[in-house]
Amino acid sequence: MSPTAGPVTDLLVRTAPAGTGTGPAVGAGLSVDDLHASLNDPALTSMTLLNEITGRFPEAVSFAAGRPYEGDYAPEALHRYLDRYTRHLHEDRGFTPEQVARALFQYGDTKGVIADLVARQLAVDEGLAVDPTSVVVTTGCQEAMVLLLRALRRDPRDVVFAAAPTYVGFTGAARLVEMPVRQVREGRGGLDPGELAAEVRRARAEGLNPRACYVVPDFANPGGATMSTADRERLLRLAEREGLLLIEDNPYSMFHDGGRRPPTLKALDRSASVVYVGSFSKTAFPGARIGYLVADQPVWEGGLLADQLAKIKSMLTLNTSSVAQAVIGGMLLEHGHSLERASASSAEVYRRNRRAVLDGLARRFPDPAAGVRWNDPTGGLFVVVTVPFEADDSALEVSAGRFGVLWTPMHHFYAGNGGQRQLRLSVSVLTPEEIDVGLDRLKRFVADRSG
Amino acid sequence: MSPTAGPVTDLLVRTAPAGTGTGPAVGAGLSVDDLHASLNDPALTSMTLLNEITGRFPEAVSFAAGRPYEGDYAPEALHRYLDRYTRHLHEDRGFTPEQVARALFQYGDTKGVIADLVARQLAVDEGLAVDPTSVVVTTGCQEAMVLLLRALRRDPRDVVFAAAPTYVGFTGAARLVEMPVRQVREGRGGLDPGELAAEVRRARAEGLNPRACYVVPDFANPGGATMSTADRERLLRLAEREGLLLIEDNPYSMFHDGGRRPPTLKALDRSASVVYVGSFSKTAFPGARIGYLVADQPVWEGGLLADQLAKIKSMLTLNTSSVAQAVIGGMLLEHGHSLERASASSAEVYRRNRRAVLDGLARRFPDPAAGVRWNDPTGGLFVVVTVPFEADDSALEVSAGRFGVLWTPMHHFYAGNGGQRQLRLSVSVLTPEEIDVGLDRLKRFVADRSG
Repeated sequence: MSPTAGPVTDLLVRTAPAGTGTGPAVGAGLSVDDLHASLNDPALTSMTLLNEITGRFPEAVSFAAGRPYEGDYAPEALHRYLDRYTRHLHEDRGFTPEQVARALFQYGDTKGVIADLVARQLAVDEGLAVDPTSVVVTTGCQEAMVLLLRALRRDPRDVVFAAAPTYVGFTGAARLVEMPVRQVREGRGGLDPGELAAEVRRARAEGLNPRACYVVPDFANPGGATMSTADRERLLRLAEREGLLLIEDNPYSMFHDGGRRPPTLKALDRSASVVYVGSFSKTAFPGARIGYLVADQPVWEGGLLADQLAKIKSMLTLNTSSVAQAVIGGMLLEHGHSLERASASSAEVYRRNRRAVLDGLARRFPDPAAGVRWNDPTGGLFVVVTVPFEADDSALEVSAGRFGVLWTPMHHFYAGNGGQRQLRLSVSVLTPEEIDVGLDRLKRFVADRSG
Repeated sequence: MSPTAGPVTDLLVRTAPAGTGTGPAVGAGLSVDDLHASLNDPALTSMTLLNEITGRFPEAVSFAAGRPYEGDYAPEALHRYLDRYTRHLHEDRGFTPEQVARALFQYGDTKGVIADLVARQLAVDEGLAVDPTSVVVTTGCQEAMVLLLRALRRDPRDVVFAAAPTYVGFTGAARLVEMPVRQVREGRGGLDPGELAAEVRRARAEGLNPRACYVVPDFANPGGATMSTADRERLLRLAEREGLLLIEDNPYSMFHDGGRRPPTLKALDRSASVVYVGSFSKTAFPGARIGYLVADQPVWEGGLLADQLAKIKSMLTLNTSSVAQAVIGGMLLEHGHSLERASASSAEVYRRNRRAVLDGLARRFPDPAAGVRWNDPTGGLFVVVTVPFEADDSALEVSAGRFGVLWTPMHHFYAGNGGQRQLRLSVSVLTPEEIDVGLDRLKRFVADRSG
């Protein structure tokens, strides 16, 4: 597809200092070593390289892009949502015109101004009874994770667990607060509570202090697994016994195959063990940068955990953009507080594409003995394929340059070993025709590597 | 004014655990001591108490509120700004309708999408030549400070300096990354470079690593001082010699008395010593939560400092809300990239109110021997009054409850001793009539305390 594929070693040549012509730099000049260690983290470097490869092959079919379906994006909707939210403040909440203007333009409540609408959505879509005072609206769910980890990381003994493979946004947030992430291998059924129990014991034996475990129980990114209700119950009992918080991240639950979904961890939680983290990036749109967390844990002499996290937020971003909250609020109001309804057409696209990828793989790799296997997620945006060779960055480079197809090496989602022979296919932004072309190319690439 | 003034000790009764009815808490229950030390910081606690006092006296005349003038806020402007920005993408930048939709709705560049418009504004209003690639658009300038401090705090020896009294947002950001803030006493002319040099020497002698100094050279909050051009030059020479970054925060420069302003530190900077931090909260509106930083320092093997800070941002909030950026972009376009023009009516209100407060103080406290003095800021939102008694939280409580007037005890802006007999009057949201009533009450309160 692209004739510009350079040698792999190009990727290792890092950018030379970009002189600004303003004279010598601070002191003897800054280097990355003068800055926080998160900037030198191998995971960050590898993600940067990955983006670089992807960016160099704009004409390749990309199974790498995880951004949401964008066919429904229409600027006029922003105006409609703003008007809908403004009318809500006026008609439903009795705001005067001055109060409406203040709500949109002034500094707002640190915990957010649409917490009540978020709580209604969780009731409608997830059957969750959430007190709006336990909600903090955040600048995307990324900030929600930072708030939580900043609160939990008091001293060098504090550690957090996460199902591996792990969403890179979570490991990034942990790096910022210098919190070690101990990975727990995920099976077909997602996070294994028995494995987590063993890891917690191991950490305690090392003198560490297990604080929390991050888990995406529904259609995890990137693994795709969904936890059974029985495993959710086991996980909750473990969390209660060990005094662990469970950080339940749920960006994909609306994108299911239509069957019955297990209840969220939060819905099953009887011991206030779960902090629920949500995002509107996939169900509404990422440009709003609106996420939230639900933290109803009582804190001795400190209200709810949500109140403590709001204090941290007041030092991080003060409050979440009122304009962006108004847009998301209007969208929720327009759809009767249901994201299931609001995101129905995206969900349909993802279902169609997931099916096209799974069927397309089955047609192209009919012989299991050839060593190409894939999982069968019942929802979400991703399919994981196992291949009989190293699916690393240099393989990706060849795949993109010589075969015109991009994907994500799974090893990026593991802290140590893992995923070396796996690749992630994202189904979110392609058409069925592109999927067909892309899978044909993937087949040729796999044949080339396996031969 | 308010009949509900309780005893001062009420303020010390902290909230009891707010049981959620969901059963026992995580482990043996969370307490604030289980969370990050920033949540136990005396400064945070005192600001919380301060907000609590303010909130209890809604009918008092408030010289405490620092929020901007809100007379110009009109929801229809949001629609106009969005349309103006959308037209700009289409007409000036040749975006197709799909590209416009993607720019507003999708994930965006970590460094922001209106960096070019920000650079134009800095050229128009401040005579600054800024390369848009050195700009990172942030979730308010609060996030900009966190990004910088996170980057600079590598290990426990790294410290930052700040002119005292210090804006509490900066000390809050520093607490999140556990970076000690060493205060440097501010004189009538603002930060004294000689004092800073002495503090830097002292820190080095203690084995510490001075990284940066935070300074608001124009109409500082809360001190109100403006640095002379000569002092700015001295400060820049010191920074270059010592390898210190200067974090120049400039939220108020548009709100001057009309005389000539000294150039910004960044305009005088020949050694890439200055990281410039800006905010649209006062010049446009806070609800957007749009700020930015300019970091053109070359980093060996790492592009510009802006590129490194963008990597940290990718772990903190991914990118700044595109919708909020579009609104601010539209406002800049509507006013020919000039915040001076965009905020002209707010600036006039602040000028008028500052004059009303200064004249009103002179009429009510004509005798210097009485020990009531005040500064004479040539811009900004604040006036600092020195009184012959302790202006602490309990004095504020009496002032609010018995005399119906609120202000901010200056000691909140000092890490240790300082400001005990000073109070800050904010002029931003009152009318001249309210200022008159408020100063009458302040006079009675001062007479009561001094008598």
